[in-house]
Amino acid sequence: MPCEVEKFRSGVLSSGDDVLAVEEPLEIRLRDGNGRSLPVAVTMRTPGNDELLSLGFLLSEGILGSQDEVREVVHVQTFKSEGRGNVIEVTLRSGVTPDVDRLQRHFYTSSSCGVCGKASLEAVAAQLPPSLPASPWSVGPDLLCKLPQELNKSQSVFGKTGGLHAAGLFSTEGELLFSFEDVGRHNAVDKLLGRAMREQMLPLDGYILLLSGRASFELIQKALMGGLSMVAAIGAPSSLAVSLARDHDVTLVGFLADSRFNVYSGQHRIHRTSS
Amino acid sequence: MPCEVEKFRSGVLSSGDDVLAVEEPLEIRLRDGNGRSLPVAVTMRTPGNDELLSLGFLLSEGILGSQDEVREVVHVQTFKSEGRGNVIEVTLRSGVTPDVDRLQRHFYTSSSCGVCGKASLEAVAAQLPPSLPASPWSVGPDLLCKLPQELNKSQSVFGKTGGLHAAGLFSTEGELLFSFEDVGRHNAVDKLLGRAMREQMLPLDGYILLLSGRASFELIQKALMGGLSMVAAIGAPSSLAVSLARDHDVTLVGFLADSRFNVYSGQHRIHRTSS
Repeated sequence: MPCEVEKFRSGVLSSGDDVLAVEEPLEIRLRDGNGRSLPVAVTMRTPGNDELLSLGFLLSEGILGSQDEVREVVHVQTFKSEGRGNVIEVTLRSGVTPDVDRLQRHFYTSSSCGVCGKASLEAVAAQLPPSLPASPWSVGPDLLCKLPQELNKSQSVFGKTGGLHAAGLFSTEGELLFSFEDVGRHNAVDKLLGRAMREQMLPLDGYILLLSGRASFELIQKALMGGLSMVAAIGAPSSLAVSLARDHDVTLVGFLADSRFNVYSGQHRIHRTSS
Repeated sequence: MPCEVEKFRSGVLSSGDDVLAVEEPLEIRLRDGNGRSLPVAVTMRTPGNDELLSLGFLLSEGILGSQDEVREVVHVQTFKSEGRGNVIEVTLRSGVTPDVDRLQRHFYTSSSCGVCGKASLEAVAAQLPPSLPASPWSVGPDLLCKLPQELNKSQSVFGKTGGLHAAGLFSTEGELLFSFEDVGRHNAVDKLLGRAMREQMLPLDGYILLLSGRASFELIQKALMGGLSMVAAIGAPSSLAVSLARDHDVTLVGFLADSRFNVYSGQHRIHRTSS
């Protein structure tokens, strides 16, 4: 998905274009032989091959065992303005009864999952984070470019080589207050938010959250719940992360490196002069 | 966590050591002022700072708003043989009542979550995948080393640069049958399993699943549900992924590159002679 951004290159911020990985929710529903339709899950996915995704999900969750149990798989509703179908329904052949207990059982969050908690698209929209206070602060590009190195210094040798995700909280002076590592990027952020909460630092407007990897929807959602108004990622943001950041005036920086970055939202918190 | 592996380097397979990122489930429970204890979630995390993780999770899920609502956070049970506490309970101050509806609501899977579906550690163990058929096949190291390049060729330009995860299914002759990309690595695998299911290819014993990133517990669980007995990852496996693969005799290869890889489990499916 094309996206207008501001790019910082060779010491200069200017307008440019970027392409975002598309991330959208897909609600998977199951319709049994008796015509009952049950929501099973919502997954944040890149649209395309939704039928296969639904079948594979039901297989790996142990709900379906073979294609023979399936009568049809169809998109049943259009959710997003782009007109893509973000609700899909898997209809079972008559006589096939899914394990309803399994469906009803509480979901749990995996090492790379943090928005678990609702089984419908409506529920995603319903968990609106608190509105942010007005925040007229800004930082310079040079300060931002120094943050990855600071986070890197705080990581364990193994964390750097072995693939742990890291999240760090910085002051607007570029000072690293604390950082955490985890196999799950959302866990690293939760640990950071937990510490900020325990230290009565909430809301975190006036701090910068730095992520060692990519920025997905769920991470921006977590940042909003912590009251953050600036998130920087060393990797790419997803389309839905950018949408959420723009909706809530969060400054979202991606591909942050020693001398460059892109700004996807909230450009007003990055001033043009170096500092 | 130290781990004995076989390493393929300079054309030779030999014993060696590796260090794994530790991944273990943490069950987060909430105890309200009336003494009721509710399971809220299970997250696959790197142990350490579990109290902060729990607080941050409850904050970002909108269940807690501040530290003032919390009386104590304690590990309440030892689950794993290592003696670490994998169940943690957050006790609220009297008068604080969590949004039980929110807790009871179905969880949903995020773009990087695939094991959602149960809210207790017992449930993880309960969803045992079907046992694999005996599979006396093997492939040579040289064949394995060619797979990443094949997967890479199948990826879109954007997929390679923009950070989409890819999963590919290969024959034991090294032929790529099909591959999928997604913002969520578990979605890429679900799409692949869905296609195999639709084409009546299950169980997938006799095929090789290649992952463009790391191999976590949930991905091995999905592979097992699809009947796969060989999974190769370009990134690192987690500790729990290795445990699960060993329990079910799945061949697990990590850090797969043009001329090297590590074998974490099921070495008998990789023969010593090149082919």
